[in-house]
Amino acid sequence: MNYTNLSKEAALAEHAKLTKEYSELKAKGLKLDMSRGKPGKDQLDITMGMLGVISDDTDCRSSAGIDCRNYGLLDGIPEAKKLFADLLGLKESRVIVAGNSSLNLMYDSVARAMLYGVVGSEKPWSKLDKVKFLCPAPGYDRHFAICESLGIEMINVPMTENGPDMDVVEKLVAENASIKGIWCVPKFSNPGGIVYSDETVKRFAALKPAAKDFRIFWDNAYAVHDFDIDNPVKLLDIFAEAEKYGNVDKIFYFASTSKISFPGSGVAIMAASEDNLAQIKKVMTVQTIGFDKINMMRHVKYFKDADGILEHMRAHAKIIKPKFDIVIETLERELGNTGIAEWNSPKGGYFISLDVYKGCAKRVYSLVSELGVTLTAAGATFPYGKDPDDRNIRIAPTFPPNDELKLASEILCLCVKLAAIEKMYL
Amino acid sequence: MNYTNLSKEAALAEHAKLTKEYSELKAKGLKLDMSRGKPGKDQLDITMGMLGVISDDTDCRSSAGIDCRNYGLLDGIPEAKKLFADLLGLKESRVIVAGNSSLNLMYDSVARAMLYGVVGSEKPWSKLDKVKFLCPAPGYDRHFAICESLGIEMINVPMTENGPDMDVVEKLVAENASIKGIWCVPKFSNPGGIVYSDETVKRFAALKPAAKDFRIFWDNAYAVHDFDIDNPVKLLDIFAEAEKYGNVDKIFYFASTSKISFPGSGVAIMAASEDNLAQIKKVMTVQTIGFDKINMMRHVKYFKDADGILEHMRAHAKIIKPKFDIVIETLERELGNTGIAEWNSPKGGYFISLDVYKGCAKRVYSLVSELGVTLTAAGATFPYGKDPDDRNIRIAPTFPPNDELKLASEILCLCVKLAAIEKMYL
Repeated sequence: MNYTNLSKEAALAEHAKLTKEYSELKAKGLKLDMSRGKPGKDQLDITMGMLGVISDDTDCRSSAGIDCRNYGLLDGIPEAKKLFADLLGLKESRVIVAGNSSLNLMYDSVARAMLYGVVGSEKPWSKLDKVKFLCPAPGYDRHFAICESLGIEMINVPMTENGPDMDVVEKLVAENASIKGIWCVPKFSNPGGIVYSDETVKRFAALKPAAKDFRIFWDNAYAVHDFDIDNPVKLLDIFAEAEKYGNVDKIFYFASTSKISFPGSGVAIMAASEDNLAQIKKVMTVQTIGFDKINMMRHVKYFKDADGILEHMRAHAKIIKPKFDIVIETLERELGNTGIAEWNSPKGGYFISLDVYKGCAKRVYSLVSELGVTLTAAGATFPYGKDPDDRNIRIAPTFPPNDELKLASEILCLCVKLAAIEKMYL
Repeated sequence: MNYTNLSKEAALAEHAKLTKEYSELKAKGLKLDMSRGKPGKDQLDITMGMLGVISDDTDCRSSAGIDCRNYGLLDGIPEAKKLFADLLGLKESRVIVAGNSSLNLMYDSVARAMLYGVVGSEKPWSKLDKVKFLCPAPGYDRHFAICESLGIEMINVPMTENGPDMDVVEKLVAENASIKGIWCVPKFSNPGGIVYSDETVKRFAALKPAAKDFRIFWDNAYAVHDFDIDNPVKLLDIFAEAEKYGNVDKIFYFASTSKISFPGSGVAIMAASEDNLAQIKKVMTVQTIGFDKINMMRHVKYFKDADGILEHMRAHAKIIKPKFDIVIETLERELGNTGIAEWNSPKGGYFISLDVYKGCAKRVYSLVSELGVTLTAAGATFPYGKDPDDRNIRIAPTFPPNDELKLASEILCLCVKLAAIEKMYL
């Protein structure tokens, strides 16, 4: 049924039917969570072997003879650097293997820029009148929270199916020297699931910002999180491209094993040019003596090499893909011909981005909440929590068990319909 | 032989004898390290059981049913909070259990104050013309490095055998509103090994700083690191005392298991008033989703309770105490009647503070370096690396094996003598 051209009578009848279903569901007192990109229990179980992989002190010796149980080695053990450099196609000399959270590395990178500036800064960003960041949106709420917390003004940039609208990006950064950065999730973007096209990556690499100390925050959180590990979606190497334009200093690259090993107990990776790393490490060595090297060694011993991680990702995909299928099938079945919703069908990552009828996202969020289904708050995928069209909803299918996910998806569709009819006809 | 009142002839004879010994040692091409407070290999070995203590998913469930393998719980698992609250005599509601480094918590606390201020601040400290910290010295070089890195001016405060000279502290903080903090290692201070007296703690608790947003950085790094676990040196409860004066908001308390479990792979603890924690967590939740909860659980399962940690500390003490004895015995034998050196005999902690003949510390450092012995750089125990008397040398006895430690101590004494004779007679 196409909801956009119903007669008033038909709309009312449909509304009555949906309301009845809604009431019946409400009586069930459900409690379902599709709010955050958390791995499910079955995903966590497949990595348990890692926790026992270190048993004696020889397991803790790095190739250079360093005892990983003791202080030292600010930027990570050589084996871990090699593992992640191989996996992500990075130069080892550009890699830091750090603590348990790439978000922490990102926050610290922005905070460090505020307190000290970055390579090329005339002064710390906190000493400037204005600091602005470009925020391709919908995007990752925690990126936006960093800016908001530190008083950095956010400017929305529309997303296209090839990544951020580069015409807009190029124009804004060229015109405005107070624009110091941009947030990117280049592969399986959060929440759109978009992979930046080769042209998009090239245009990022060739960017000519007015600010000499502009930084691209390249959060490659889902670098190896393809559903089809044997036919991965290719993302162009931003460093290799940037080298062609003398732009390597503009890139701050991040990744983590939060969705490879354990969220919160994995390791985080930062990559940047040698000059950037020198400046970063000068501050980092004041901040900490070093990160958890035993945990790095745990990852190295368990995965062995990049292929070992890819093999492990195959097991994750086997669990995750059916969850995405459940949501997509439900969306297609329930909303496919309604004309009131659009969504993507990603080839990896952790999210599905659902655009509901304009002006209805908050209402949908509130309707599903009342039925006990938790979604990411409507608006959260935009800077300041303000979705200009009030349309976007982020679906995180990985955490709930499949039966709960199915039910939650059906509830979501019901509420999308209800909200649209209310909006259009009541 | 008392070196302070030699005849010129006797001095030259002694110098010739010492120089000969020095040359013989130089020919050996030694490589000994007494530079940092690193546990020795035998200490690391006693905690290996911790690494295998978690083997299945039930081990990862917290009492509240939380799966420690997944995202969530910003401020630490309840079991870990209880464990360290019990151990350190803190209220659970005031405890955060965080990542692998208390230094990181300290740096972040100062950086956060710079970027946001603390409870009671009129504005972020980075927006002020001047921010100053009191630095009891000799003290911990990494505390001073945080101030220097963030452009905070450091003011030396003399240390007494009861802690910082409180007359000086009280006067300075009352007079100068730009003094925002003070660094304290209240038990087994680094490097002096001093435990703050009850009166010192009480005077800290009752402090009346001109700055409304003054903070005492109470780095209780060696809280349970007594050599005699059954007769521990008591440190007064700073929070309990501060409550009497409405001063709990002034305390930022830090501790870690770096020298209990593994340096770099332990857990770090911060304690602060409920109001402070609310402000801190508001920023922390932007910085990270959470810390390594599996590692927290590893500590909880392995130690079980506070008594379990104390029992473990007994094993550490059994290894460490003989190392301190080696150094102290050598100092007494070689320098006891020379009149050119003073040192402490701590009852716990990780350091011995050696004061050599005035104006000789740098020379001693350089002399031992040439023999292949690494010490903490002379001056490092003072702000800006400037020891006003050029006297203090920090000895870290824990890392070298006992035979190396004995040799390194003898070499150190030889060089202390050589430098003093040079200074006085040549």
